[in-house]
Amino acid sequence: MRRSDVGAIRTVAVVGMGLIGGSFYKASLKAGYRTVGLHHGDGPAALADADLVLVCLPPPAIVPWIRSHAAAFRRGATVVDICGVKSPILRDLADVPRDGWTFVGGHPMAGREVAGFENSLADLFVGASMILTPFADCPGETLAALRDYFASVGFGMTVVTTPEKHDEMIAFTSQLCHVVATSYARDDLVKDSVGFSAGSYADMTRIATQNENDWSALYLANRASLVPVLDRFIERMAGFRDAVAAGDADELKRLIVEGASAKRREIAARAAAPKG
Amino acid sequence: MRRSDVGAIRTVAVVGMGLIGGSFYKASLKAGYRTVGLHHGDGPAALADADLVLVCLPPPAIVPWIRSHAAAFRRGATVVDICGVKSPILRDLADVPRDGWTFVGGHPMAGREVAGFENSLADLFVGASMILTPFADCPGETLAALRDYFASVGFGMTVVTTPEKHDEMIAFTSQLCHVVATSYARDDLVKDSVGFSAGSYADMTRIATQNENDWSALYLANRASLVPVLDRFIERMAGFRDAVAAGDADELKRLIVEGASAKRREIAARAAAPKG
Repeated sequence: MRRSDVGAIRTVAVVGMGLIGGSFYKASLKAGYRTVGLHHGDGPAALADADLVLVCLPPPAIVPWIRSHAAAFRRGATVVDICGVKSPILRDLADVPRDGWTFVGGHPMAGREVAGFENSLADLFVGASMILTPFADCPGETLAALRDYFASVGFGMTVVTTPEKHDEMIAFTSQLCHVVATSYARDDLVKDSVGFSAGSYADMTRIATQNENDWSALYLANRASLVPVLDRFIERMAGFRDAVAAGDADELKRLIVEGASAKRREIAARAAAPKG
Repeated sequence: MRRSDVGAIRTVAVVGMGLIGGSFYKASLKAGYRTVGLHHGDGPAALADADLVLVCLPPPAIVPWIRSHAAAFRRGATVVDICGVKSPILRDLADVPRDGWTFVGGHPMAGREVAGFENSLADLFVGASMILTPFADCPGETLAALRDYFASVGFGMTVVTTPEKHDEMIAFTSQLCHVVATSYARDDLVKDSVGFSAGSYADMTRIATQNENDWSALYLANRASLVPVLDRFIERMAGFRDAVAAGDADELKRLIVEGASAKRREIAARAAAPKG
């Protein structure tokens, strides 16, 4: 691809009109882009003018859709998939002929506990982080144009990383949360909990109502990164349990201070992080 | 005690002016009670008029303070301790002579992540649950007067239960949350998490900044109830981990549905719960 083919993003095609696709559609319109919304089965004509194609389909549909539309993207276009797992997507797209267009993996750190276009919001991404996982040969100007676009639809920061680092971090910051919440809610005491709980318990179990098809697919797609994250967490819980059982106050204080210090350092790093 | 000694609560003495004591002090004043705030070392004179004494001291100070003031409470007074563990308090107070006054254990399901009178709020308890653990011989009119008082300072419901059931439920709804949060934050990946997280991770780790002295004391005071709660949670996490490692999608869906169904039943029960 010639450098001159990569320009500012003016026309955006959003494929898939669920919660996330709908929110990108509304946010792009609001930010002033010429925006087209496509459903999974729509023909390729609408792609001819798109500088940016956001593929917001269920994970198993993403690679087949991109493969079957590989010849329809315009020269200089950037195609970004929007889903929560990145290594398998980039691996499966590595051999797709990309004649003049660029693929970049994408994962917005935003969502809601409700699904569908009817729940999508133009301001869903305000202040959130957008993660991008490009191929190694991705032109710098493509990433610069994407940063501008994602900032313009509300994101507070864009992180560029490898698919492997993305998958490890998401196993920790998202999937482990969901495994903890569902495991928490599977205790018999849940049925007695009305009147015995405040904000911490509500925060800890809110996402227990996750959809079993979506989440089992995400856990399994990211199995290689998730299992070691689960193993380490279970080991730390068991260490804490043993200190309680042994009545070891010094060890408990040490473990609490370690967790509290790590969390405080993270809060400080978050406050100091560059935006945009 | 004669029934006629138990009347409506008009004068409230709050002992201990930290976050919770200060909030009871401000909420009682706002609700129109004659309210006295006492510090730990204040003399007994201020207790002579108090219909209700709320003992908001650190847990180890509660029983000694009540013992040493046992002769100072007025006839018909109700003394409620305010702290997060109940069986040891009631056990240690069982032999204290209660000449015309009544003791009831108390635990408000409300708090903040900041401490001290300067952070106390008149509306801290609005909509929260107040848990009461009376001795078996507690007069019904005492509990009725307490329900009225706690409703008047903002609580949405009052739950009367045994100290043992309280301690088991709190191990599950509060202490397990705090152990999970601190164990979560002790992973090396926390330092890389800026840009890789959304609301779930923030909700899950917010309380990791817990105070090591307060919380190690609470965990150990409730050791008998907490250890089995931790064991069951670790076992469920390990079962989930094994299903991920084995690539068993059916088992993962079964576990997720079990957690999601339990959480949905809890949400429905909460919506249907009687208030006040």
